[in-house]
Amino acid sequence: MTETIHNWEDHGYLATYVSKNGSFANLRIYPHGLVLVDVQSCNDLSGGEIEQLLNKIEERMKELCHRNIKRVKRLPAIVRGDAIDKYWPTADGRLVEYDIDEVVYDEESAYQNIKILHSKQFGNILILSGDVNLAESDLAYTQAIMGSGKEDYTDKEVLILGGGDGGILYEIVKLKPKMVTMVEIDQMVIDGCRKYMRKTCGDVLDNLKGECYQVLIEDCIPVLKRYAKEERMFDYVINDLTAVPISTSPEEDSTWEFLRMILDLSMKVLKPDGKYFTQGNCVNLTEALTLYEEQLGRLYCPVAFSKEVVCVPSYMELWVFYTIWKKRTDV
Amino acid sequence: MTETIHNWEDHGYLATYVSKNGSFANLRIYPHGLVLVDVQSCNDLSGGEIEQLLNKIEERMKELCHRNIKRVKRLPAIVRGDAIDKYWPTADGRLVEYDIDEVVYDEESAYQNIKILHSKQFGNILILSGDVNLAESDLAYTQAIMGSGKEDYTDKEVLILGGGDGGILYEIVKLKPKMVTMVEIDQMVIDGCRKYMRKTCGDVLDNLKGECYQVLIEDCIPVLKRYAKEERMFDYVINDLTAVPISTSPEEDSTWEFLRMILDLSMKVLKPDGKYFTQGNCVNLTEALTLYEEQLGRLYCPVAFSKEVVCVPSYMELWVFYTIWKKRTDV
Repeated sequence: MTETIHNWEDHGYLATYVSKNGSFANLRIYPHGLVLVDVQSCNDLSGGEIEQLLNKIEERMKELCHRNIKRVKRLPAIVRGDAIDKYWPTADGRLVEYDIDEVVYDEESAYQNIKILHSKQFGNILILSGDVNLAESDLAYTQAIMGSGKEDYTDKEVLILGGGDGGILYEIVKLKPKMVTMVEIDQMVIDGCRKYMRKTCGDVLDNLKGECYQVLIEDCIPVLKRYAKEERMFDYVINDLTAVPISTSPEEDSTWEFLRMILDLSMKVLKPDGKYFTQGNCVNLTEALTLYEEQLGRLYCPVAFSKEVVCVPSYMELWVFYTIWKKRTDV
Repeated sequence: MTETIHNWEDHGYLATYVSKNGSFANLRIYPHGLVLVDVQSCNDLSGGEIEQLLNKIEERMKELCHRNIKRVKRLPAIVRGDAIDKYWPTADGRLVEYDIDEVVYDEESAYQNIKILHSKQFGNILILSGDVNLAESDLAYTQAIMGSGKEDYTDKEVLILGGGDGGILYEIVKLKPKMVTMVEIDQMVIDGCRKYMRKTCGDVLDNLKGECYQVLIEDCIPVLKRYAKEERMFDYVINDLTAVPISTSPEEDSTWEFLRMILDLSMKVLKPDGKYFTQGNCVNLTEALTLYEEQLGRLYCPVAFSKEVVCVPSYMELWVFYTIWKKRTDV
């Protein structure tokens, strides 16, 4: 064991202990009394051995401080560089460790990185470019973005933007709609989910066309423009595209413009008494939510909205869902 | 900036960089190609400055490796030694960061450490001896431990074991029971929750006695023994005491015995057609759940059980709830 000590005078001490087998530990003592101990080990110590080592260090520290320690906190080990990455921060930037035990699917499509990881409790989780999208446990998400069971989809015309996991399509098709059109840009998302998210999509993605639905593998912008030109109208438009941008910096203006374009085009194909559903953001990102709501005041037609906060199991944070409808201008 | 380098020959390198202001960084290079960088800083660098520093390090590493890096992952900073501790691991031992922004209450009672912390999204959270018990967002917990809305509490006799946060009591009292008796050992839990968990308990803890309820500040074991001796019977017994022990090592036998004693006594005061509700454990702790279910086969009377998995928002893990009832021996 090699010991190296750095003494800052004004800023306390750092002792680094290096063991022969490649492990090392930092002991950082701050002048105000905070002591931080970090142990880094690469496979050469088992979880039990590390716990034992930390128990010894804790006991020795207590002796040295004459049992005069206010607070001791030990955090679970962080596993890095493993084939399985368990850390998928929340939308509001918090560190959370998932119970991932298998990488089921990991591919780069033309549009994004697509991962499907298996969680012991949530089932398979779809992660698009690092963002947790949906797990097999998350029927609550699908129900929320469909209007929380308060809508009657029987004989209705429905347009789904995105939704490649098939969850919304699968649930709506059960409700005997007239026709559901889903427009998903990324065939590879559909391929992955058809195979590995069957608890979410059932058999609905096995064919891109069914009795009362069709899936178009296309960018939704030209499709919306086409429908608007043809004056094709829907009872429901469900936007399940990428999340509201979290960054609210000026260079993100184009993202807001994109969002507004989608909204404007969606309103153009929405019947006067139709409803537009979308997911918003983490309830903590109040600034992004406010900015989103500001966009709603800048559409070509006046709209009103309501929102609902829902607990989506695999998100580990509460999520806001919006319902948007056209204000009646004739009243 | 001081640099210290340790070369293991067989195990790669460790470089430690120490800055004049008390910050330091470790760069650990493993022979199989894994590079870990840790920066520790005590208030002298802002979040933005650290991000900038990490961007620079990442860019430089990419240059050095000729853009030949397979995967880069940056984790959110871990804040240690702060007045507000945001890390409350799950029952299955995963690291999760909560959005805590205020310590509302922090006291040692005769029985446990009682914390009430404010979460931006979950409201106030009750944490007993380090275990997240209940947040103001967690009506789902209370509903689950009351039988998920499938029971009729009108004119019923109910016994609550524990339940100091007042959530169960508050919800049942709304349903016009004949009499609810709650037995909570720790007056300080009641005092804290009455003041800071009002979204959970309403005004029900303002008095220990109401028209159809009473709260006994007592250990529930002697109370159960007394009721059993008096042959006092209940339609519902709701056990909201401490969680199933997570450890399943032999020295924990006494905990299982305690659990079994509570169960046996509860069955003695439960009417033949009564129901016993309790929370179980995290759905991932299958071994502890199996052990619990084994206890159910070792009671003085034969019982049957069912279980339900529920998403309790502040838990960040799915939770198992049990319903237990006496098997009819006369059939």
